[in-house]
Amino acid sequence: MVVDSNDPKRNSLPIAIGVVGPGLIGKTLLSQLAEQAGRLLEEWGLELQVFGVTNSEWMLLSATPISLKSWQTALDTQDTEASLDSFTYHFATSPVADRVIIDCTASAEVPCHYKKWLTLGIHVITPNKRLGSGPLADYLAVKEAQHRYGASFMSEATVGAGLPVLSTLQSMIKTGDKVGRIEGIFSGTLSFIFNSFGPGTPFSEVVSKAKAAGYTEPDPRDDLSGMDVARKVVILARECGMHIELDDVEVDSLVPEPLQSTSSVLDFMERLPEFDAEMEARSSEAAEAGRKLVYVGLVDVAAGTCSVTLQAYPTDHAFAQLSGSDNIIAFSTQRYSQQPLIIRGPGAGAEVTAAGVFSDLLQVAHSLGA
Amino acid sequence: MVVDSNDPKRNSLPIAIGVVGPGLIGKTLLSQLAEQAGRLLEEWGLELQVFGVTNSEWMLLSATPISLKSWQTALDTQDTEASLDSFTYHFATSPVADRVIIDCTASAEVPCHYKKWLTLGIHVITPNKRLGSGPLADYLAVKEAQHRYGASFMSEATVGAGLPVLSTLQSMIKTGDKVGRIEGIFSGTLSFIFNSFGPGTPFSEVVSKAKAAGYTEPDPRDDLSGMDVARKVVILARECGMHIELDDVEVDSLVPEPLQSTSSVLDFMERLPEFDAEMEARSSEAAEAGRKLVYVGLVDVAAGTCSVTLQAYPTDHAFAQLSGSDNIIAFSTQRYSQQPLIIRGPGAGAEVTAAGVFSDLLQVAHSLGA
Repeated sequence: MVVDSNDPKRNSLPIAIGVVGPGLIGKTLLSQLAEQAGRLLEEWGLELQVFGVTNSEWMLLSATPISLKSWQTALDTQDTEASLDSFTYHFATSPVADRVIIDCTASAEVPCHYKKWLTLGIHVITPNKRLGSGPLADYLAVKEAQHRYGASFMSEATVGAGLPVLSTLQSMIKTGDKVGRIEGIFSGTLSFIFNSFGPGTPFSEVVSKAKAAGYTEPDPRDDLSGMDVARKVVILARECGMHIELDDVEVDSLVPEPLQSTSSVLDFMERLPEFDAEMEARSSEAAEAGRKLVYVGLVDVAAGTCSVTLQAYPTDHAFAQLSGSDNIIAFSTQRYSQQPLIIRGPGAGAEVTAAGVFSDLLQVAHSLGA
Repeated sequence: MVVDSNDPKRNSLPIAIGVVGPGLIGKTLLSQLAEQAGRLLEEWGLELQVFGVTNSEWMLLSATPISLKSWQTALDTQDTEASLDSFTYHFATSPVADRVIIDCTASAEVPCHYKKWLTLGIHVITPNKRLGSGPLADYLAVKEAQHRYGASFMSEATVGAGLPVLSTLQSMIKTGDKVGRIEGIFSGTLSFIFNSFGPGTPFSEVVSKAKAAGYTEPDPRDDLSGMDVARKVVILARECGMHIELDDVEVDSLVPEPLQSTSSVLDFMERLPEFDAEMEARSSEAAEAGRKLVYVGLVDVAAGTCSVTLQAYPTDHAFAQLSGSDNIIAFSTQRYSQQPLIIRGPGAGAEVTAAGVFSDLLQVAHSLGA
């Protein structure tokens, strides 16, 4: 392909994009696209054009590229009711050959359409963990469709947001490395909590602080249950070829059993101090052994098991030396056997999550010859 | 593209590969290719075929794919004298449309052919640092040729071997992140040396131990001079758009000035102890301040400067907590401003370096539609 920089459009590659769920991440992605569109066209001959945006109520479908500056107003003044079937039809009949639908929702319903989109040759990109950690049969059906119809399904941002976690794992596997185990701290919230927690600091106090700082979900139990970490563990395990379900993951919930049924968040927060002594004991015991408590997700490929547990790591271990709300992921493989390959950094936030989705989009464009 | 798994060759993509310099890394790459060839054909319809292998004396050129099992014997019994011009002609006239030449040498001469190869539409992959850290004009000419002729020049393995360093940096830049600074420990040898060195341990003793363990170059001054690190720093800086030359990097050489001219390695090793007191003083001073000496390469994009210097880092800093011969690279960007994105792990060795080259090869295949 000869790209004449004087006339970028000469060999330009248009890609029709549909965005489902323009919430915080979707909005951020659209503004990142708006900022880079000009440069990508000039340097790579890449024309990223948005032809549809839909939220759960309304949708904006267009036969011509939607302005990345004014899409919000256009969507807000829409009276076309949202329908993923119409949305699908719009892209199925698009005159643009290369199409990508980006699911920026956390919904369990949108992933039900992935297989159909892939079958239609539409690439699918998402930071949504539902498919990757949902029923194995659905996941395998999507993988099969991807393989059979040559359309890509990419989900880098489901684990570690913008950190190059899945791409690194996939590259290891494709080049023939044998993954033995993947372990890490996959929750920014729990990373922050255990980086602040230690002997003498009540656990409930740390949780309240994290909640106040906006680090937790509205109901902190959604973080403390460990299910978000378990979902990421399942996604990684399946990339390694393990056929497991979310239920197969051994999860050590941090929500005290008696409080799991507690109705209100307020009630939960009020009663959490009752269990501080228990956590204090575990953390003191760890401290006395020169260790620190960390909440670790583990994919043990060799053993064929996965777990999410509270562990005591030596204070000089990389997992015990995190700060802020950093994620950290360590890959132990045949090639990285003496010392693991480690990736560390912020694993949450709209900017980095959208960037992870954006890099998947550029990977798709790359595979299309951009 | 519909891939019918019953007949992988139906839509298969053949790629003609030429390997220059089948030394330790080249050999390892060829055996990794041999191991994965079958799976890549079956799963991705990718036919990786080697049509030429050349060392500095002899070359093996073939009109049909060379056996990945017996290439060595075939090359050893060759009587065709090596000639990069004939090698180039062989691939320029190959009936296979997609061609890749992999330079596994450390030679400064082979890179002189990159531009010509790219102009012919032949992709170039290398772990050789010479082009990326050589004269800026040559580097820019290769980048220009890559852009103009749509052939890829990839060099992931030049920095951190198999660690995803350049690919991560490129993805950040392409998605519009703004890199502020990149700093890291880019030499496995110097990492090992400073992970072992500290107050009470003579520096010369640590160097001898590293040399005995085979961690250093035959002449340890090649590591201690800091030039290998400076080359990696230049490669990273240029990826960030900085137009710098190797001479622009401020390098704090660890070879005592009086010993730089010393003739023999033996003489150098014998005289190194004369300078232990100096190093002991620096390391004690650091220790008293709760710090540890590390040899850091820095690309300060904001300031437009690059350096390779011995620095004292707080003992709780990630750079001061390495073990073995790990590399570590920290990217501070607009999106990773509070906390950097960090990649850590073994940054040298034939297996991981070849894997870095292999992943570049699969990236090229991906861009060709595999």
